Amino acid sequence: MPIKPHKLAIVGVGRVGDAVLSDAMMSGLFGEICVIDVNEDMAAGQALDQHHATALPNVANVNVYAGNYDDVSDADIIIVTAGPSITAGKNGATGAARRELAATNGTIIRATMAQITSRNHDAAIIICSNPLDAVVHIASTEFDHPQGLVLGTGTILDSARMCRVIADHLGVDPDYVRGYMIGEHGPSGFPMFSGVNVGGVGFDGLAELFDVPPLDRDDLTERINHAGIAVFNLKGWTSAGIGHSALTIARSILLDDHAVYPVCTTLRGQYGHDGDVSMGVPCVIGAKGVERILEVPLDGWEREHLDTTIKAIQETIAAAS
Amino acid sequence: MPIKPHKLAIVGVGRVGDAVLSDAMMSGLFGEICVIDVNEDMAAGQALDQHHATALPNVANVNVYAGNYDDVSDADIIIVTAGPSITAGKNGATGAARRELAATNGTIIRATMAQITSRNHDAAIIICSNPLDAVVHIASTEFDHPQGLVLGTGTILDSARMCRVIADHLGVDPDYVRGYMIGEHGPSGFPMFSGVNVGGVGFDGLAELFDVPPLDRDDLTERINHAGIAVFNLKGWTSAGIGHSALTIARSILLDDHAVYPVCTTLRGQYGHDGDVSMGVPCVIGAKGVERILEVPLDGWEREHLDTTIKAIQETIAAAS
Amino acid sequence: MPIKPHKLAIVGVGRVGDAVLSDAMMSGLFGEICVIDVNEDMAAGQALDQHHATALPNVANVNVYAGNYDDVSDADIIIVTAGPSITAGKNGATGAARRELAATNGTIIRATMAQITSRNHDAAIIICSNPLDAVVHIASTEFDHPQGLVLGTGTILDSARMCRVIADHLGVDPDYVRGYMIGEHGPSGFPMFSGVNVGGVGFDGLAELFDVPPLDRDDLTERINHAGIAVFNLKGWTSAGIGHSALTIARSILLDDHAVYPVCTTLRGQYGHDGDVSMGVPCVIGAKGVERILEVPLDGWEREHLDTTIKAIQETIAAAS
Amino acid sequence: MPIKPHKLAIVGVGRVGDAVLSDAMMSGLFGEICVIDVNEDMAAGQALDQHHATALPNVANVNVYAGNYDDVSDADIIIVTAGPSITAGKNGATGAARRELAATNGTIIRATMAQITSRNHDAAIIICSNPLDAVVHIASTEFDHPQGLVLGTGTILDSARMCRVIADHLGVDPDYVRGYMIGEHGPSGFPMFSGVNVGGVGFDGLAELFDVPPLDRDDLTERINHAGIAVFNLKGWTSAGIGHSALTIARSILLDDHAVYPVCTTLRGQYGHDGDVSMGVPCVIGAKGVERILEVPLDGWEREHLDTTIKAIQETIAAAS
Repeated sequence: MPIKPHKLAIVGVGRVGDAVLSDAMMSGLFGEICVIDVNEDMAAGQALDQHHATALPNVANVNVYAGNYDDVSDADIIIVTAGPSITAGKNGATGAARRELAATNGTIIRATMAQITSRNHDAAIIICSNPLDAVVHIASTEFDHPQGLVLGTGTILDSARMCRVIADHLGVDPDYVRGYMIGEHGPSGFPMFSGVNVGGVGFDGLAELFDVPPLDRDDLTERINHAGIAVFNLKGWTSAGIGHSALTIARSILLDDHAVYPVCTTLRGQYGHDGDVSMGVPCVIGAKGVERILEVPLDGWEREHLDTTIKAIQETIAAAS
Repeated sequence: MPIKPHKLAIVGVGRVGDAVLSDAMMSGLFGEICVIDVNEDMAAGQALDQHHATALPNVANVNVYAGNYDDVSDADIIIVTAGPSITAGKNGATGAARRELAATNGTIIRATMAQITSRNHDAAIIICSNPLDAVVHIASTEFDHPQGLVLGTGTILDSARMCRVIADHLGVDPDYVRGYMIGEHGPSGFPMFSGVNVGGVGFDGLAELFDVPPLDRDDLTERINHAGIAVFNLKGWTSAGIGHSALTIARSILLDDHAVYPVCTTLRGQYGHDGDVSMGVPCVIGAKGVERILEVPLDGWEREHLDTTIKAIQETIAAAS
Repeated sequence: MPIKPHKLAIVGVGRVGDAVLSDAMMSGLFGEICVIDVNEDMAAGQALDQHHATALPNVANVNVYAGNYDDVSDADIIIVTAGPSITAGKNGATGAARRELAATNGTIIRATMAQITSRNHDAAIIICSNPLDAVVHIASTEFDHPQGLVLGTGTILDSARMCRVIADHLGVDPDYVRGYMIGEHGPSGFPMFSGVNVGGVGFDGLAELFDVPPLDRDDLTERINHAGIAVFNLKGWTSAGIGHSALTIARSILLDDHAVYPVCTTLRGQYGHDGDVSMGVPCVIGAKGVERILEVPLDGWEREHLDTTIKAIQETIAAAS
Repeated sequence: MPIKPHKLAIVGVGRVGDAVLSDAMMSGLFGEICVIDVNEDMAAGQALDQHHATALPNVANVNVYAGNYDDVSDADIIIVTAGPSITAGKNGATGAARRELAATNGTIIRATMAQITSRNHDAAIIICSNPLDAVVHIASTEFDHPQGLVLGTGTILDSARMCRVIADHLGVDPDYVRGYMIGEHGPSGFPMFSGVNVGGVGFDGLAELFDVPPLDRDDLTERINHAGIAVFNLKGWTSAGIGHSALTIARSILLDDHAVYPVCTTLRGQYGHDGDVSMGVPCVIGAKGVERILEVPLDGWEREHLDTTIKAIQETIAAAS
């Protein structure tokens, strides 16, 4: 098999797609990056801007260009950010706005997946469009593409915010706070406090270990959920984290590293669900995408939240049908 | 002297400041980054978005926050992107729009430099605000700060576009095209064709070496100048390259690496000018900022363009006075 | 305060010092690296080899040179690898060989610390020389240097081997296995199984979560201890991991990132010991070096091993007195 | 085509192979690395040492293991360092020692290439074994493998030393000194002074530009040739640069970046030679390996040296026949 430089296609280059593109250019993972957008001028402009930057010191000569769906045929990774964002100030709310967005982006993801899957049967398709879990569910269950290779950024960023909030309380680097948000990438996702670990110590032992005031589950949950909304309210959008999240997944797939973090995937037997919901749950990620879904044990508080978040996601899926 | 993690302050976090911030977060250069903007919500939102991202895999735990000018007192690097941008579609033109911007941003840089220099006498101040050369000239000549430590991104990005255009013609990685744009970061800057080198061969020998059609000076100059405008016209702004340019300078200073590329600096005896113009010219960059200005020899065509670009810059400086 | 590129001094450039040097050159952390060795030709040769490499693509222009102790006066980080290694095939044993090495390297670290502390009162001194815990104890307790800034690589590499062995059993990336070896960097160090966490699940739940045969504490402990010896027996020395370990600490200090991992430090009240033993224990690392020692709770099995390892370290310390 | 993480095979893990392995592990290019050596314990030990290191912070989970030639069948890149080195203290001499090494390593490369080419028809084979040009010539001309995909590190490191020596004279970062050594990776290789460029200025203008004493061709040539020997004489071997050189080539191939630097390749019409010599000459490197040999124009002094170096290489080739 001839040497094949890895190729990325990005579908949609608004705020989030731009963050994905910038991060991908600097990642060292790709020899070729194709940018696709319904706004062809925007796609061309983003690609040209990056094309110029390849001539700067310390920027690699990635072959970056604006293209169309024919260019996805030999892509290894396809990152989809198409469709409008959740509107700022609406708190990513569960109500009418969210259902309306689900309908709009449900239509967009169906059109996008139809374009992709008619041309490419092997790429990993990493979805960032919101409402994330519903969009991933449509892409994963309505099209013929290997199950593990259709996934979403899930609760990676939500988990990062969880770790950040705890890390701020303890005064440590959040990379050393291990913890996961599970379920919806949205307000009903919940922290798996029973799995938190810092320095080998679980959630309930952290206050003593670090000599800080106790951490309260409900208070923390609220602060974590508020973290994303705060960014929205202050600057009008979020972008810094999502590009890194998508690229983190891409790296794990291209290096087959078997990392463990929560991506959005369709449940296949876990928690008594089989193909009726997609959500963020810790997974092992390798060259086949989601190689294993980890059905982590939940305590009572978490189990209640699991039911709630699954119901919320299913309602959003219904709104997109 | 106690260990001091390097600290960056960014003044202005619009499109360009955001690119600087994103790049700085991933650079591994800084332990602390302070973001300052007249729009305090925007500064807070940008910082908070990045603060969350520090908890993602492969993102370092940089201490990033929104601050004010008191926070620049112990900064090692200060990158200034404050002030409005050149308006898209105006071709970054020489006319009224440019002079008007000069007046506005002249006022802004004076206020910014007054704030900075009353608190910090050692930091490198790297300016990205346009019209770049006039803004740098004001900052460099009207305030008491070490000469070499007040500089601008100059023609780094222009030079990158020059190398990119030539590289596209030859089919090579632009990092291996050595060449410089000199003078204004704007329409009057010109390519120093006599200094171009690819694979050990000068400009006039490249067509034969690569077996491609001859390269025409005027045609190339036009294509280089068009390159930046094309991005503006397509996507409405440029950002991908300028963050990298500013961080490239910051890295050279913090590592004292004595790299050679064109930054904007005030001439001190070069080309018969002493303190009456600031422009992009190849320099040696180290821990003291601009450690040496290289007065590269120019041929007749280039000398003519030098006179033109100096005149253009001086007119813009005058408009900002 | 003028901009200060960070400076590293490496004392001792045998196998381990060479690994440290190579890693440091590529780390992007340092503008200046000084290499010191009693074998002055070796120091000069290692520095010159790296000096040439700075001219290769993708290698930064670090100022690397062979020097003497006067050059440590302005170093930010000093990594000490001086002294002979534990001899291959002796299993890093507890017996006569270890005590003999303790006596030899005890003398060497006293001479080295005298040289350093007479010239530099602020640098972080990161020790790699074996028997590690005894050598760190001498350096930390017999010289006047800030407590947190005298530390050793401790059980970072031992912990890595622990995570690797568990990761191999589960089929995951070891970066996502959180776990610590505690105590001696040597045969009596022990795994804190009660603190292991993968995907939010503790040690006892991993076999079920990953659907693999159960993990046995004693079997794993033996395999972890065997891991290092196996490398010794196969290739005659170990080096790949220790450079990364030392640089990991250096990075945390220079970026003030508050990472959490086990370094060797002198206990100050933890586990009922105050200044009478130094060992690997999870710590928070920042610009002041060890900023906090985490007295992680231990279960009965672990507590027994703690007593054993402390006794073993104290015997080695005694052999070096 | 399913996603394929890039795979590297390293044949020979002595000093140079170890440097290649260390650099490859940190490069981010490979998901899988297979190490092969006639000393199977050494191969196993090197792989195991690196396997442990994958569990350290900031080290990726590369699948690294000791294997055999069957494992090269799906490799994308094969780096060959097999065979004894040039003996220290002999100045890499042209005499008997060099011819003897040619005979020994000629036999080894023939056996190695027979093993590789019977299993893999697509990989890039990057050779580091000495005498480099003769070994590459045998591999390139006696086996059926795509021409561009059989290449050697050539004069990359020699060119780095040239740029370093000039950079030291001028006080600049050698990455900004563009220049090439051409011909043998050994004493007869020569600097192409006519192609040197710093800051847009050629060799003859540098003394004035930087206000330093003039650079003398013969003196510089001697200092460049002495540079490598000095490392040999001081530390007994060289290794720091060659790993980076091999990985630089691998990166260009896997990212298809069309970089320009001198690798060792068989001439096919350049300088009047067709298949009768292999040597270091500037080339464009992409996914097909050597995609273009640049027949750079030489002046009289250089042309004389070209004849000499080709003759020297051909004599070494003859000694290996």
